[in-house]
Amino acid sequence: MTEPLQIGLLVFPKVTQLDLTGPLQVFSSVPGAKVHLIWKRIEPVPTDSVMVLTPTTTFADCPQLDVICVPGGFGTDDMVGDEEMLAFLRKQAEGAKYVTSVCTGSLVLGAAGLLKGFRATTHWSSIDFLSGFGAIPTRTRVCVDRNRFTGGGVTAGIDFALTLVSQLVDRKTAEAIQLRLEYNPAPPFNAGSPETAPAEILAFMKERIAPSQARRADLMGRAAARLS
Amino acid sequence: MTEPLQIGLLVFPKVTQLDLTGPLQVFSSVPGAKVHLIWKRIEPVPTDSVMVLTPTTTFADCPQLDVICVPGGFGTDDMVGDEEMLAFLRKQAEGAKYVTSVCTGSLVLGAAGLLKGFRATTHWSSIDFLSGFGAIPTRTRVCVDRNRFTGGGVTAGIDFALTLVSQLVDRKTAEAIQLRLEYNPAPPFNAGSPETAPAEILAFMKERIAPSQARRADLMGRAAARLS
Repeated sequence: MTEPLQIGLLVFPKVTQLDLTGPLQVFSSVPGAKVHLIWKRIEPVPTDSVMVLTPTTTFADCPQLDVICVPGGFGTDDMVGDEEMLAFLRKQAEGAKYVTSVCTGSLVLGAAGLLKGFRATTHWSSIDFLSGFGAIPTRTRVCVDRNRFTGGGVTAGIDFALTLVSQLVDRKTAEAIQLRLEYNPAPPFNAGSPETAPAEILAFMKERIAPSQARRADLMGRAAARLS
Repeated sequence: MTEPLQIGLLVFPKVTQLDLTGPLQVFSSVPGAKVHLIWKRIEPVPTDSVMVLTPTTTFADCPQLDVICVPGGFGTDDMVGDEEMLAFLRKQAEGAKYVTSVCTGSLVLGAAGLLKGFRATTHWSSIDFLSGFGAIPTRTRVCVDRNRFTGGGVTAGIDFALTLVSQLVDRKTAEAIQLRLEYNPAPPFNAGSPETAPAEILAFMKERIAPSQARRADLMGRAAARLS
C-alpha cells in the first residue's frame, strides 16, 4: 500500500470504553495504519468509567476513512438521535471500504440508515432493536455482511477487529497481532452469554437493566420512526 | 462493605492501553468500587497508540488502595528504573489487600522487590526476565500466589480481572460482569500463544521484537542488580 490505511473510531459521551479500546489495540498494531479518534470537538469526552477519551480529530477535519467503527454503550441512546453524528456517518460510509460497529454501536449505524437489508449483531440485550432499522438481527459474535462488520457485546470487539484485519490486510497480519496481544482467552467462568450464564445470573442482570432497557426501547422506536 | 473498595491502576508513558483498559472495564463494573488512574502528575499520558490517558489522582494524593494494578507495555522498560514509581508501589503494597499486574507490569512489581519468592507470570516474550527479580516464572494466563495476582500478555488482563473480582467480592459478581461484557470469546484464529501460533508467525514476531528484547534484557539485568 502506498497510502496509509485510515481507520477511525467514534468517541462520544458514555461510550463503553472497552468497546473502543479493544479494537483500538488491534488496529494500532496494523503496519502503516493511521488511527483516528473522532468527535465533534477536540475536548475530553467522558466514558462509562473514570477514564476520559481525548479525540484526535473532529467530524469537520476527519479525512475520508477506509474503516469507520462505532463503539457502543449507554451513550448510544443519545447518538441514535444526534443528527450531526448520523450525518457524519452517512457521509463517511459513502467512501469507506468498511462500515463497522461494536456492541450497541450497530444501533447508531442502524439509525443512520446504514444497516437496511444487512445482517448485523449487537450486545445480547439489544438484539431486538436492530429490526426497527431494517437490519436482519443475527446472534453471532462477529457478523459480516458485504462491507458491514458488526461485533457483539463489548469484548466481541477484539474478535471483530482481528476478523476485519484479516480481510483488510491479510491473515498473517491478524495472527501476528493476536500473538502480540497474547489473545488466547481463558475466561475463569462460563457466564459470558445468555445461553451459557447460570439462570440466576441472567435473571439478575435482566432485572438490573430493565429500567435502562425500557428507556432504550422508547428511544430506538423513535429513531426507527424518523428513519422510515 | 461500608467503605468503597479502592482500586488503582497505574498509568505511565508508553503503557499498552489494553493492559489497563481491559481490567478497568471489569473493575468499573464492581458495585461500590472507586477506581483510580494514578500517575505522578495530573497530565495526559501518551500510550502505545494515539490514545492518551488522563490520570484521576497522583502518587502524592492517592488513598491507600485495596487493589493496586500495574499494566505493561514498552514503558515498563523505563518504569523498572523509576525510583518514584517503585517507592510508590512499595508503600502501597504494605497496606494493599492485593498487589497485581498485567503483562510486563509484573517486571515493575519485580523491580520494586514485590515478587521475591512469589510465582508470577507476564507476557510470553518476557517470562525469562522474572527470575532476575527473585520471582518464580509461571507460564499460566492468570497466576495467583497468596495476594499476588499477575496476568499474562495484554488481553489476559480481562481473565485476570474477573478472577480477582471473584475473590475480592464473590463469584456471582464476577459472572454478572462477564455477562454484561459478553465475554464469550471466539478468536477467529488460534495464534494467541507461542504454543498455538503457526511457526512462521512466531518466527516473524520473534525477529521483529529482537531489538527491543535486547534492550529490555539489558535494562532488566540492571534493575535486578539494583534490587539485590
